[in-house]
Amino acid sequence: MERSNTVFIGRKPVLNYVLACMTLFKSGHEEIIVKARGQSISRAVDVVEVLKNRFMPNAEVVKIEISTEQMQSEERGTSNVSAIGIYVKA
Amino acid sequence: MERSNTVFIGRKPVLNYVLACMTLFKSGHEEIIVKARGQSISRAVDVVEVLKNRFMPNAEVVKIEISTEQMQSEERGTSNVSAIGIYVKA
Repeated sequence: MERSNTVFIGRKPVLNYVLACMTLFKSGHEEIIVKARGQSISRAVDVVEVLKNRFMPNAEVVKIEISTEQMQSEERGTSNVSAIGIYVKA
Repeated sequence: MERSNTVFIGRKPVLNYVLACMTLFKSGHEEIIVKARGQSISRAVDVVEVLKNRFMPNAEVVKIEISTEQMQSEERGTSNVSAIGIYVKA
């Protein structure tokens, strides 16, 4: 799996992830992927919107994928969780 | 604004909205839009994934849009909130 151009969204503040995206673009990637699962999906959308509206007005969302992934946890066994992948071009 | 084929996602259980989607399809709409703002965005993705995986295997996501909307509230004045629109075809 190609991960070097991917930002995984967790529970940190939105701006942390915005900075991570900008760092990837600065390091030469023309396209990055913002990925999140479950409750973090809303934050992934926030990250891309803040990136576009405040920091990189030329950035463009080229594709958005949604899917269902299986998660293993000790408490709940196997459960399904929704996921999103937002592809952004500089 | 054309709203008759739109399901707005709030804080109810996912299956309530899945049922609302199926009702729209049954009433003759070929394409529906699942919309949500802020924290409900994650639930909107859940709704579409459950609809596809459990109830309508032929349903297809044709387009996903994200945007920023301005919200007015008495406590916080005007604030920005992320929004999503998921277009689903039967």
